Amino acid sequence: MKLIPLADRVVLKQSTPEEKTKSGIILTSTSQEKPQQAEVIAVGPGGVVDGKEVVMNVKPGDMVIFSKYAGNEVKLDDEEYIIVKQSDILAIVE
Amino acid sequence: MKLIPLADRVVLKQSTPEEKTKSGIILTSTSQEKPQQAEVIAVGPGGVVDGKEVVMNVKPGDMVIFSKYAGNEVKLDDEEYIIVKQSDILAIVE
Amino acid sequence: MKLIPLADRVVLKQSTPEEKTKSGIILTSTSQEKPQQAEVIAVGPGGVVDGKEVVMNVKPGDMVIFSKYAGNEVKLDDEEYIIVKQSDILAIVE
Amino acid sequence: MKLIPLADRVVLKQSTPEEKTKSGIILTSTSQEKPQQAEVIAVGPGGVVDGKEVVMNVKPGDMVIFSKYAGNEVKLDDEEYIIVKQSDILAIVE
Amino acid sequence: MKLIPLADRVVLKQSTPEEKTKSGIILTSTSQEKPQQAEVIAVGPGGVVDGKEVVMNVKPGDMVIFSKYAGNEVKLDDEEYIIVKQSDILAIVE
Amino acid sequence: MKLIPLADRVVLKQSTPEEKTKSGIILTSTSQEKPQQAEVIAVGPGGVVDGKEVVMNVKPGDMVIFSKYAGNEVKLDDEEYIIVKQSDILAIVE
Amino acid sequence: MKLIPLADRVVLKQSTPEEKTKSGIILTSTSQEKPQQAEVIAVGPGGVVDGKEVVMNVKPGDMVIFSKYAGNEVKLDDEEYIIVKQSDILAIVE
Repeated sequence: MKLIPLADRVVLKQSTPEEKTKSGIILTSTSQEKPQQAEVIAVGPGGVVDGKEVVMNVKPGDMVIFSKYAGNEVKLDDEEYIIVKQSDILAIVE
Repeated sequence: MKLIPLADRVVLKQSTPEEKTKSGIILTSTSQEKPQQAEVIAVGPGGVVDGKEVVMNVKPGDMVIFSKYAGNEVKLDDEEYIIVKQSDILAIVE
Repeated sequence: MKLIPLADRVVLKQSTPEEKTKSGIILTSTSQEKPQQAEVIAVGPGGVVDGKEVVMNVKPGDMVIFSKYAGNEVKLDDEEYIIVKQSDILAIVE
Repeated sequence: MKLIPLADRVVLKQSTPEEKTKSGIILTSTSQEKPQQAEVIAVGPGGVVDGKEVVMNVKPGDMVIFSKYAGNEVKLDDEEYIIVKQSDILAIVE
Repeated sequence: MKLIPLADRVVLKQSTPEEKTKSGIILTSTSQEKPQQAEVIAVGPGGVVDGKEVVMNVKPGDMVIFSKYAGNEVKLDDEEYIIVKQSDILAIVE
Repeated sequence: MKLIPLADRVVLKQSTPEEKTKSGIILTSTSQEKPQQAEVIAVGPGGVVDGKEVVMNVKPGDMVIFSKYAGNEVKLDDEEYIIVKQSDILAIVE
Repeated sequence: MKLIPLADRVVLKQSTPEEKTKSGIILTSTSQEKPQQAEVIAVGPGGVVDGKEVVMNVKPGDMVIFSKYAGNEVKLDDEEYIIVKQSDILAIVE
């Protein structure tokens, strides 16, 4: 099963947050801030979205930083994904 | 009786959520999160919507993921449907 | 007396909600959810509305589903009508 | 003294609400719902309003239904008027 | 000193509200509703405002009715003025 | 050090409010209303801003009235400035 | 590792706020107001953003003033950055 994003949407997968701090203390979930970094899994076709031409500038495999309050969390086959609009991706990490 | 969506609207039908967890416990309704996955039942004609050209990219039978907070729930002949705008559909599941 | 809607507006008339459930219990008004289904009574001319061309796609006699939170309720000659914009009509019921 | 509305504005005058119910009880002001029906007194020239061409479709003397929450109440020579944008007029009553 | 409004702005001066009611009772300030009527003192040049062409239709000396909640109050040389956009002027009083 | 505003922004400097009333009473800071009058210090280049052509109509040295709730306060070399968009400037004082 | 901003975004790095006041008192974090001044680290390509052409006017190394409430804070390799849209940059400090 795979997700094929529509329009200007991008499917992201967040890497699992580290369960331990550097000093080895196991963190409870409330103190674990969600990482804003994720890997691009699939990219929509772009095109005319809401009457405006959108060109897709990210590709599968890119590591990206995305806006903290953006996106829809989706669960598929026990894997969690985040679907964002490309405009919610702030930067590529190289 | 059938629903013929107008403009860029799409009629969805959610599959019934599983009544039991894997371990066999019957869930009460509050712990059952609504699935965001649904089947496309009918697709509007698209065209100029709010002054912008919209091309319809989903078709009846597609399994789709849609935005959690979108759509109007509608009951017809004791069946429940959700009518969303195509822009609230995030991805097709294949 | 009749209502002639302006621009992209549509005059709807809701059918009276059934006063009894299938098992024959008479419902009090709070448990009677307003039906979202209504009949089209009159249709505006469409044309340029808020700077955008609108073509009217519904006609008097159509049974339609409209958005729960849309429309203005209007009383004329003791009859109640709802006036909505065509964009608040989600689907035609056939 | 008279009001000459600017742009897409329309001056309306509400007819006095009936002071008695059919059974002859005199209503206090709180139980008197304002009528949404009014007579068109004066019509602005239309033209380009907020960058969009507006054609005026109502004329003085028309009885109209207008949106309950729209308009500015204005008092001139002890007469009360309501000034609305034409887009807040829902329908003409014939 | 004088105010030269920019773009589609208009400088208004409200006439002093009458201090007495018809029966001669002197009103305290809280019961004196601000008049919505004012005289046009100065008119901006219009032109392209927020990407849209605005033609000015009022001129100094016009008595106008303006929207109750619009405008910025400004004090200059102990005189109070209100600066509104022309679109907040509802009608000219003749 | 100096501030070079971008796009349609204007750097303003407010004159110090008078510390005394006419009758000579020294005011505490809460009763001192901020003056809305300021001097233009620097003017951005204008051009296409948010897709719309903006022509700059104020110049350094102009005394202007600006909207009470607009602008960003900025401190540079112990001097306080306000940076506003030109559209928040209501009028020039001459 | 480096951040490559997309579209009209700009990566900023704030200089560390001074830990002491002029008189030598060490400030606690609540009394330390975040400086609005930052250095430009990386600049997106601009181009068509949300249907509007954006030309980038800042370059790496520029010291800029940005809007207090704008931007996304991002942590990468233990360094903190702020990613803003160029339109949230108010002025260049020279």
